[in-house]
Amino acid sequence: MPTFEDLLKSFRQTLENELSLWLEVKQARAIDVVPASEELTGVLSDYVFRGGKRLRPALLYYSYRSCGGTGDETVLPLAMAVELLHTYLLAHDDIMDRAELRRGKPAVHLVFRHLHRSREWAGDSDHFGQSAAILLGDLAQAYSIELFASTPADDKVWPELRTAFSSMVQEVIVGQYLEMTAGYREDLGEEELLRVLRMKSGRYSVEWPMHLGAILAGAAAQQRQALCDYGSLMGEAFQLQDDLLGMFGDPERVGKPVGADLAEGKFTVLIHHALRKATPAGRELLTTALGNPDLTPEEVAQAQEVLRETGAEKRVVQMIEERMGAAQAVLSALELEPEGKRFFEGLIEFLRGREA
Amino acid sequence: MPTFEDLLKSFRQTLENELSLWLEVKQARAIDVVPASEELTGVLSDYVFRGGKRLRPALLYYSYRSCGGTGDETVLPLAMAVELLHTYLLAHDDIMDRAELRRGKPAVHLVFRHLHRSREWAGDSDHFGQSAAILLGDLAQAYSIELFASTPADDKVWPELRTAFSSMVQEVIVGQYLEMTAGYREDLGEEELLRVLRMKSGRYSVEWPMHLGAILAGAAAQQRQALCDYGSLMGEAFQLQDDLLGMFGDPERVGKPVGADLAEGKFTVLIHHALRKATPAGRELLTTALGNPDLTPEEVAQAQEVLRETGAEKRVVQMIEERMGAAQAVLSALELEPEGKRFFEGLIEFLRGREA
Repeated sequence: MPTFEDLLKSFRQTLENELSLWLEVKQARAIDVVPASEELTGVLSDYVFRGGKRLRPALLYYSYRSCGGTGDETVLPLAMAVELLHTYLLAHDDIMDRAELRRGKPAVHLVFRHLHRSREWAGDSDHFGQSAAILLGDLAQAYSIELFASTPADDKVWPELRTAFSSMVQEVIVGQYLEMTAGYREDLGEEELLRVLRMKSGRYSVEWPMHLGAILAGAAAQQRQALCDYGSLMGEAFQLQDDLLGMFGDPERVGKPVGADLAEGKFTVLIHHALRKATPAGRELLTTALGNPDLTPEEVAQAQEVLRETGAEKRVVQMIEERMGAAQAVLSALELEPEGKRFFEGLIEFLRGREA
Repeated sequence: MPTFEDLLKSFRQTLENELSLWLEVKQARAIDVVPASEELTGVLSDYVFRGGKRLRPALLYYSYRSCGGTGDETVLPLAMAVELLHTYLLAHDDIMDRAELRRGKPAVHLVFRHLHRSREWAGDSDHFGQSAAILLGDLAQAYSIELFASTPADDKVWPELRTAFSSMVQEVIVGQYLEMTAGYREDLGEEELLRVLRMKSGRYSVEWPMHLGAILAGAAAQQRQALCDYGSLMGEAFQLQDDLLGMFGDPERVGKPVGADLAEGKFTVLIHHALRKATPAGRELLTTALGNPDLTPEEVAQAQEVLRETGAEKRVVQMIEERMGAAQAVLSALELEPEGKRFFEGLIEFLRGREA
């Protein structure tokens, strides 16, 4: 029986081969029309192949397979669409979050800033970098649409697939806006914050990809609902885990500096709990640190201390455990094609390992 | 027989009614999930209804009709998709071009900058404004995808429609990148520049919408080709006209300051011709002015003088005339449903009137 890692790796190879061929064709055509377009399409291809676990398209793929779907040619365009959608969102998010690193290399807007500088072009390199990164994101999104629209879905499932894909994209955008403004909204309670989390990352990263795979496979309503329940729980668990890693994670493994979330002003559930339980001094410390791009390592350490003292860290660890347990229960009660089931069980173990 | 203006107005009313209903439903659903999302969807709706001639969806609509297509319910989702695609591109372009006005009102990034300031939110208002404008564009694009994907096209025409829609989006994005970098590319000749123009605006604004309408109507290859030829010629004529208006137009009517194109650094065919014929002093003046956001009215007047002296203005006027003449010839030779034909003839007159 292949392990979760085997299944993920074998899918990743298939996806990357297809994606690489597809992008080569697109790039050749773009250069054919306008030679200079190689710059934009070239940076995009490099960016797509910087790595990444390809977990979203893998969830879509194994959800499709686990519901009895066969034929890679049916599911791969949709899986590629989901991956390029993510490329697009990362490029735009990094502008908004002023992130400097992505997968251990410069963020897209910094790649183009560097290009502008190294060619000694006139004008504002920062502005050029941002503009080109907006365009790179837009192009990745356009590619994503083309792949999505070329999914050879049955007429029967196409309306649902279309609604699901659109909802996924729209939710993540609205979620990003809320995340961006959450720090300013004093009226935002835990319920609404969790809703943002669910939309922005949990649903987007796990539930929707699984939902799309199940729809494409023509899964029965009950099976689909159970997969979505599992996906929803795991999505929240992953997001909560990300919040912990963003504050306490090893910068080498996380790919961004310790406390990056704090500097970016991300108002996470972790922060929310800490603010509720903190002393006035702790509260003051956290609110001052939130969104301050010039945090010192000492200030990050102090903030970490507040998150520990208030029990916020423990509370979030517990929330993750609850969700993993519930996800396991949903899965155990579900009849699925064995390889797919193995993948989803493995994902729970994978998340647990990430915690260590 | 209805005039061009009658036909445009009647279509505009139909489109705006549908679009308004559609956006209301989307907004209600978004608010239902997260109340605070009203900010983003509200600004988007206001922006869509700031006005605009709706020429792109009208061209799609009358192309569909002129090829024998019937049933507004078939063509309106696609027409709305094309309009929201434009909304998305405008929001992003205005960030890249540092434009302050759009249709006589503040550009989207300035609307959000103002919102940030007026609520006395912490942090950088400029950055917030840009980030929210990126998201507003992304959301408009997501809406556009949903509408496009819901087009009730025949299975027979869907693959072509999908390829055409994707190509349109991708071309305009690559074109924008080239426009943004054209000023730095010394190797860019008239041929490549015209290609950028065609992709960025001419093909995007006229040819592709007409192409999409013809595909949806199931038009015969010959008829479709002729409509595309007309569209290609008119698209170039419109773009060249825009270049003239961007340098010599009445700021009230154009909706942006005189010489705005110059300040934004747009390397147009007009500028290209002027640079080729200018004296060293004139050349120096133009290259210095290009991309300088702090141009004085005197500097703009001097640049206008160079464009006149070198004959660049006249040359562009002549290029427009040639294209309108050829477009009229294509149209005269073509058998079309009368209302559609009237619309396309009227468009030539409309362009001529715009010159005055």
